[in-house]
This record gives sequence, C-alpha cells and structure tokens, in this order.
Amino acid sequence: MTGLSFALLATDGAARRGRISTAHGTVETPAFMPVGTAGTVKAMTADAVRSTGAEIVLGNTYHLMLRPGAERVGRLGGLHRFMGWQGPILTDSGGFQVMSLAGLRKIDENGVTFRSHIDGSAHALTPERSIQIQHLLDADITMAFDECTPFPATEEQAAASMRLSMRWAARSRDAFVERPGYGLFGIVQGSTFRDLRAESAAALQEIGFHGYAIGGLAVGEGQAAMFETVGFTTPMLPADRPRYLMGVGRPEDIVGAVQRGIDMFDCVMPTRSGRTAQGFTRHGTVNIRNARHAEDPRPLDAACGCPACCDHSRAYLHHLFKANEILGSMLLTWHNIQYYQDLMAGLRQAIADGRLDAHVGELQQGWVAGDIAALPPSSTDAP
Amino acid sequence: MTGLSFALLATDGAARRGRISTAHGTVETPAFMPVGTAGTVKAMTADAVRSTGAEIVLGNTYHLMLRPGAERVGRLGGLHRFMGWQGPILTDSGGFQVMSLAGLRKIDENGVTFRSHIDGSAHALTPERSIQIQHLLDADITMAFDECTPFPATEEQAAASMRLSMRWAARSRDAFVERPGYGLFGIVQGSTFRDLRAESAAALQEIGFHGYAIGGLAVGEGQAAMFETVGFTTPMLPADRPRYLMGVGRPEDIVGAVQRGIDMFDCVMPTRSGRTAQGFTRHGTVNIRNARHAEDPRPLDAACGCPACCDHSRAYLHHLFKANEILGSMLLTWHNIQYYQDLMAGLRQAIADGRLDAHVGELQQGWVAGDIAALPPSSTDAP
Repeated sequence: MTGLSFALLATDGAARRGRISTAHGTVETPAFMPVGTAGTVKAMTADAVRSTGAEIVLGNTYHLMLRPGAERVGRLGGLHRFMGWQGPILTDSGGFQVMSLAGLRKIDENGVTFRSHIDGSAHALTPERSIQIQHLLDADITMAFDECTPFPATEEQAAASMRLSMRWAARSRDAFVERPGYGLFGIVQGSTFRDLRAESAAALQEIGFHGYAIGGLAVGEGQAAMFETVGFTTPMLPADRPRYLMGVGRPEDIVGAVQRGIDMFDCVMPTRSGRTAQGFTRHGTVNIRNARHAEDPRPLDAACGCPACCDHSRAYLHHLFKANEILGSMLLTWHNIQYYQDLMAGLRQAIADGRLDAHVGELQQGWVAGDIAALPPSSTDAP
Repeated sequence: MTGLSFALLATDGAARRGRISTAHGTVETPAFMPVGTAGTVKAMTADAVRSTGAEIVLGNTYHLMLRPGAERVGRLGGLHRFMGWQGPILTDSGGFQVMSLAGLRKIDENGVTFRSHIDGSAHALTPERSIQIQHLLDADITMAFDECTPFPATEEQAAASMRLSMRWAARSRDAFVERPGYGLFGIVQGSTFRDLRAESAAALQEIGFHGYAIGGLAVGEGQAAMFETVGFTTPMLPADRPRYLMGVGRPEDIVGAVQRGIDMFDCVMPTRSGRTAQGFTRHGTVNIRNARHAEDPRPLDAACGCPACCDHSRAYLHHLFKANEILGSMLLTWHNIQYYQDLMAGLRQAIADGRLDAHVGELQQGWVAGDIAALPPSSTDAP
C-alpha cells in the first residue's frame, strides 16, 4: 500500500505509543482530534488550534457537502487551504450525521437519501459519493461510509446493520483512490455484541484498510459497556495499524480507552463545553458561570499554559460569560482544547515511560479531588 | 501638572503628529482606540488587539459599573489586569451611554439617576461618582462627566446643556486624583454653534485639563456639519494638549478630522461591522455575505497583514458568515481593527512627511474606485 503509515513506538499493557505519517505531516498517538465541523474548530483560529499542540483536526462530510459544497471546496484547493490548516485532516463519512441531523431519511442497500437540515434540499449519500466528497475535501484520512447502528439494538438488528456497513466498506474501498500519504479507515460495527464485533473486524481486515475505527459507541450505552466493547474489540484489530474510537469523549473515557489500546479520538465535548461555560481542568470540570468565581483572581487551571489561564482570572472568564461576550467562548474553548492536548501528551509520555497506570491514577486523583476551594467572600463587596 | 504628557512632533497644515505618554506606555497620534465596552474588544483577545498595532483601548464606565462593578474591578487590580491589556486605557464618563441605553433617566444639577438596561436596578451617576469609578478602573485617561447634548437642539437648549456640562467639568476636575502618568480630559460641548463651542472651550481651559475632547458630534448632524464644527473648534484648543473627537467614526470621517487637527478617535464601527459581515478595505467597504464572494479565492484586502487576509480567502470568510460561525466575527473584526490601525499609521507617516493631503487623495481614490471586480462565475459549479 502506498498510503499513510503507522509506526508503533512503545506499548504499556494494551496501550500504544505510535506515530501516523500522512501527506500533511505526522501525528503522535494517542491523539485527540479537535472537531472542525464546518471548516472551523468553533471559536478558534487555525493558529490557536496549532498552538495547543493539536496535530490533526476532523472535518464533517455532512456539513461541508451541504455548505459550502464539496466541489466548491475542491475548486478552492481543498479543506486544508480553505480553513488555513496545513496539518493532517480526517473527515468522517457523513453517515452518522445524516442519521442525527438530516430530515426525511431513507436508507436502502444503495445508500441514504435525506433532506438538508439547513434548507430542506434533497441529497443522497452512497459509499461512492462519500468517498468522492472526502477526496474533493483532500482528507488525509478518509472514513468508510457506514451506518451507525442505533443503541439499543437487538442482536438481529445489530447484525443486519453491521453487515450492510461491511458491504458499504467494500464499496468504499473500491471507490478510494490511493495516493501517497493518504489513507482509508474501515469502521468496526456490531453494537455491544462480541461475536458481531469479531465478524466485523474480520470482514474489514479481509478487505484491507490503512486503519481501523470502532464505531457505534458513545451513543448511550454508558462507560462500562463502552469500555467492555473497546476492551474485547481492540485485540481483534491488527497491531500495525492505527485504531480510532469515534466520538469519544470525556477525559475519563479517553484515558480508559487508551488503556485498552486506542490511538485516536475525536469529540465535540471540549469545544461545545467551551461555549457553555464548562471548563475541563486538572481538578475536574468547572462551571465558570457559578457565582463562586465572580471575584476569584486565580486562573481556571494554574498548571495550564493557555491564554485563558496565563492572562486571565476566573473572575474575568465569569464576567465574559455573564455578559455574553464572544471572548468567553473563545478563551474557554482554547483552554479546553489545550487541556485535551496536554492530557494526550501526558498519556503519550506515560506509555513511553512504562508507567501509564500510575499516571492514570494521578489524573483520576485530581479529578476526584475536585475544584480548588472557593475564596472567602470579600468583606468589602459593594452592595 | 504631574499627569500624562503630550509631545507635538510634527504638523502638516492643521494636522498634528504627536505622542501621548501615560502610566502604561505611549500612544503615537493620530490614534484610533478600539472600543472594549465591557472589558473586552468584542471577539478579540488582548494579544490580537495588540498585534494590530493598537496602543490604547477604550472602556465604558456605564457597562463596567453595572457589570461586573467598579469596586470589583478595583479589587481585582484594575481594568488593565482584568482584561489582560497592559497598555494605556481611556474610559468614558458614562454620561453618553446612560442617555442612550439606560431606562427611567432623571437628570438634575447633581447628576443622573437611571435604571440598568440589564436588570432594571437603580443607579446614580454624578461627576464625583464617575471620576471615582474611572479611578477604580485605573484608567490612564479619565473623561469628565458631561451631558451629550442631543441633536438637533436649539441654541438655547444647547447652551443650557453645555453650561451644565461645564459646571460638571469643574466638579470632575475637583474629584480627580492626580497621579503621575494619569490624566483628565475635559469635553467641549455646544452642538454645532460656534459661539457655544468657543464659550465651552474657554471654560474648560479656565479649569485646566490634560487633554480636550470634542463631544456631542457623530449624533446625526452629518459629516459636513461635523467637519465644520471640528474645523472651528480645534483652533480654540491649546496646541500642547491632545484633542479627542469622541465616537468618530468611518475611515473618511477620521481622515477629515485628522486634517482638522484631531489626535484621538474611538468608534464601535470596526468591531460592530466585523460582526455583521462588513469589512473595511483599501477599496471601500465590502459585504462579505454577498454571493459574489462565495467562490472567490482572493483575500479580502491583498495589502492587509491580518490573519483574515493572509491565511484565508473571501470564499472562506463568506462561508463562515453563512454558517454563523464565531470565527467569521473573529476574523473580520481582527481585519477591521487592523485596517483602522494601518489607516492611522499611514496618516501619521504622511503628516511626518508633510504630504497629508496627497496621501488622503490616494486613500479616497481607493475608496471611490470600489471593490476589485468579481471573478467570472465558475463554469464547473455544482448544480
């Protein structure tokens, strides 16, 4: 294969320290990919995203095909040039978001027809069209077109859905144009059923992909079922290819999945939370709108190097959200992405040092201890 | 006086090239001050504001006294520390915005009582309280408390309003605490009446201020009346003190006022327009939402060094506004502030070189010529 390559640099138990090499640069793994849905990581410049240490971002086929359109992005030189992000980009296949966002969906063997959530216009996605769109976007990593099996599903429903996805995976593979440094990932489905996951993993390896994703999780099954499914699925995947757990998650989810052999993650959590006043910190999550922060001169997270923490107080962030200032979303998103990247860097170092479990214990201790104690109320507060 | 100082470096006709030295640094004039209403230049980090070449920002007493409160900002170390802006800050007196934003206003000799537009709570502003608030905010330049005379006003109304402002100016002067590098500006009122402006300018100089502002303009009188009033008022002001035209304006307004001897400006135009898809450029204003930009790979303004112009196409900016992405407001605000700062830098250089009128002619030529021609429609546009 002439596609992207993966080097496994170290292991610690099931956890892996690796490096993906793509046409637009390398990605140290385990890696978290900030979500840039419509060609922008919401409320951040590309420079700001880069400054956090993020090496790869995710783009959404569904959003970009509807607006501004894949052919248009292609004519403008691809998604890297369009959004000013020169590093690697992974795009999803559009299947998941058709199911969660679009109207009047109809699914059959050929693919999906649906109406845009923006203007009601009619569209179709097939494996072939999804791969073509991702090619037009110039994605370094293209995802096979699949159906994200709803949860809960009976074993029969999950099997039928998974087998449809496997037929679509073969069509995706046929439609993918090999180019040096570009890759196509297959997606293991099968809900929480071990036998179905095994069947899916085998079917995908029979087809052959540059990497393997685990789909159909983080859809309501809960952390225990998610960890269990990840735990029995990763050993079914080849050791010499990257593994991507789609749509996960909270810091504690990511840590557990890394311990179970996952290399790549994406989630809207840090960006969405950044716009709703939730900050992720080394002492757990903090709601900066809470009145206890109104006059707190301390940084959100004293160990963080982002501008929200280095240049500003909790009181200022609190004020920005109370006043509905855009800068509040900008700063807290920046912080959350910085926190996630710091989290991944720490996990990578711990795997390399062979002390992942001890490191995870320290992380969890911080989260469980909770936020720093509130300051005593000011004795000179204005009436 | 121990306050801030002003050095007049060069003149070209009535236009002046100067330097204001304050407790938090120097300001090259003519200068444009980005408006940071509630402790943030909307949609920009302090670093981004600095990167445009801006040396001083404006804060609004009315907004900050209501939220988060002047005493709170004071306890948090002042506005510089609160908003992470280490350069000079000018604050207005609150009078103008009480009149334009607050509810149930009552004005008498003592001052103004009003209700907050945020929560309806009752507040009062007097000259003494306004100066105290600006002290708590740690403003390098404090503005005297005045009544912004509505437009149109009869000469009698304008005279009564101006004389009230002059009595308040004297009380503001008495309330101001002198500190090295800090200054208090008086505000000339009198609507468009030359005799009233002369009376006001004389009254203020009798009191004595570190600088002189022209208030009560940009309130609907039109550019011709504004230029005329500025033109006959600046000669009434001392040459050795900075002159500030409040609330002005569009690039063409600023240029004309600089030619008439103004040193300082503020306006919400570049920031507000940046959030409503209006870009200021060397070829006039551009509405980036216009369909002609949808597939235009060219920068908004090829001569601009901001990230919106260096890293992105018009097509991308267009897309961001169509998709209601926060990054659209961020990038276009950044561009507009950069454009205003470049405009001021060009004016300063032209004054120093003694070729202001020629330079202004070139600027106007660019604005009048209008935007670059649209590209021919793409022949391969998707249906």
